[in-house]
Amino acid sequence: MIHKSVTIGKNVVLGEHVVIEEHVTIGDDVTIGHHAIIKKDTQIGNGVKIGDLTVLGKGTASNKKMARQPKSTGMPLTIEDQVVIGSSAVVYRDVCLKKGVFVGDMASIREHVTVGEDSIIGRNAMVENNTTIGRRVTIQTGCYITADMEIEDEVFIGPCCSTSNDKYMGMGNYQYKGPTIKRGAKIGNNATLLPSVVIGEHAVIGAGAVITKDIPAGKTAVGNPGRVMK
Amino acid sequence: MIHKSVTIGKNVVLGEHVVIEEHVTIGDDVTIGHHAIIKKDTQIGNGVKIGDLTVLGKGTASNKKMARQPKSTGMPLTIEDQVVIGSSAVVYRDVCLKKGVFVGDMASIREHVTVGEDSIIGRNAMVENNTTIGRRVTIQTGCYITADMEIEDEVFIGPCCSTSNDKYMGMGNYQYKGPTIKRGAKIGNNATLLPSVVIGEHAVIGAGAVITKDIPAGKTAVGNPGRVMK
Amino acid sequence: MIHKSVTIGKNVVLGEHVVIEEHVTIGDDVTIGHHAIIKKDTQIGNGVKIGDLTVLGKGTASNKKMARQPKSTGMPLTIEDQVVIGSSAVVYRDVCLKKGVFVGDMASIREHVTVGEDSIIGRNAMVENNTTIGRRVTIQTGCYITADMEIEDEVFIGPCCSTSNDKYMGMGNYQYKGPTIKRGAKIGNNATLLPSVVIGEHAVIGAGAVITKDIPAGKTAVGNPGRVMK
Repeated sequence: MIHKSVTIGKNVVLGEHVVIEEHVTIGDDVTIGHHAIIKKDTQIGNGVKIGDLTVLGKGTASNKKMARQPKSTGMPLTIEDQVVIGSSAVVYRDVCLKKGVFVGDMASIREHVTVGEDSIIGRNAMVENNTTIGRRVTIQTGCYITADMEIEDEVFIGPCCSTSNDKYMGMGNYQYKGPTIKRGAKIGNNATLLPSVVIGEHAVIGAGAVITKDIPAGKTAVGNPGRVMK
Repeated sequence: MIHKSVTIGKNVVLGEHVVIEEHVTIGDDVTIGHHAIIKKDTQIGNGVKIGDLTVLGKGTASNKKMARQPKSTGMPLTIEDQVVIGSSAVVYRDVCLKKGVFVGDMASIREHVTVGEDSIIGRNAMVENNTTIGRRVTIQTGCYITADMEIEDEVFIGPCCSTSNDKYMGMGNYQYKGPTIKRGAKIGNNATLLPSVVIGEHAVIGAGAVITKDIPAGKTAVGNPGRVMK
Repeated sequence: MIHKSVTIGKNVVLGEHVVIEEHVTIGDDVTIGHHAIIKKDTQIGNGVKIGDLTVLGKGTASNKKMARQPKSTGMPLTIEDQVVIGSSAVVYRDVCLKKGVFVGDMASIREHVTVGEDSIIGRNAMVENNTTIGRRVTIQTGCYITADMEIEDEVFIGPCCSTSNDKYMGMGNYQYKGPTIKRGAKIGNNATLLPSVVIGEHAVIGAGAVITKDIPAGKTAVGNPGRVMK
């Protein structure tokens, strides 16, 4: 089903049973997989590849238990030229995927997130809302990127890293703050970052480390709790 | 494809290519996303929202290597009023989602599980079979809730926490026992809970902690192995 | 949509809206779920069960930021007799699932991987490329199995374990090497294995351990960093 208000460019390949809702715009040379769902208002540039069974432009959802109800700005999902998205991914409205971004299979990105040019969101990685991801960043398979977090350019985050933003764990209505990972820092696999920690430029966090305090630029931290190596 | 034995209430919105199998009952004011699959016997209350590409009412599956073959009670999946389920989720038969429950995108819940009123099963969280989850519980994104586990009311489990229930890791035919998390306890992100540990009421487990022993009510434990803070 | 070049055996049950591309071969007594997608050249044996919304035979994908572009050998996905695959899984081309393998819901297996007879790839587990998995192996829910890794027969890997293969974290063009897990070893839940470590035969790794060095056969290691227990 393709809504009659949809604009489609040249040389677009559509899979079987694709659903494209109202006011979607699709550029030239785009490939869309089988059973993909493009929800209303989504803007897709040229040369974009979208895998099978992927949902683009999902709206926010909630129940009454949630401490903070998600806000919708009304902005659409914008996918710039040459972006590649895998199979069974879910990307929300009010996300901007800059030129050349790669989103792996089964990854998901929530609302009010920008992913910078050529960055990689690995397979099965989950990115929460209100987070900014720079350029040429690698977020590997299975990472959890919390809400209200900042990741600068050329950061590398190994598989299965976990972050958090809620110091008091669900107590309610105060400021949440995720980690900040400065330019060029590297995080080992399955590391744990606590709310609001700052990982300095080109710092290195060891695999499995639990980081409870800020780590200075250029330093390496390992262990639980994570300590700077001398 | 909607089977002729299906009962559908008033003001129900069905997406494209929805599949609804025999003997499903759907209440009033329900929204079902594109390509959603509602398998036989599933009971859906009023005001329920179901995302795109979600499977509801899946049967058990196994191969001959599995130490314990999953059992089917024949009970259907029951979804009470006002439940919200995201996109690309998989919920099995013999599950009861109580009123107001939220199940995130890509989450999965296996057979013989009850989730209490208004609780949240985060995105990409996996809940195994034979587990009970209380009311107003928050299970955040990417958590792994093992089989044979008990989670009481108002527990908070941070992102990516991992639990286990098999002390001898695959040796075979003995009693499995997951952790018990008592009322109001809070578990930090990426914490690890070993089989059969008991986390006391309102206890707090630090992010990245590895909990090998019971933690008393009201105490805080951190580190690997986890120790109670003084 | 079933391409006219597809060969289908006896007693095959096809779900609604199934897509089967060119040159696929399907044996006898196969069940394929709703909205499943079988991509070109995939070879499916007898008695195979495939869940809803699953993608089989996906090709490789990349963007220009990737340090190593994935290689395609042109080999198809081969699924031997009695294999069971869950819902919403994604399995690539150039994978061989041997007789009796079980692949859980939402699991994914990348290219150039062999999974031995009767092994289990748990729900939501991610297996990267160029990895070999032996016979009667159990990989539980949510595990991350990196590229260039070797898992011998009868290994048990608990839920949410994480592995890595890139010692310098994204610096570029050198040899990657994942862990080697020798026959009969057991890995506890949420353990972290660093690049190129060797876990000896029948060694046991504790839950939450961070393994930075080789562990001898028959020994048990726990903690962060992981140390052999006396």
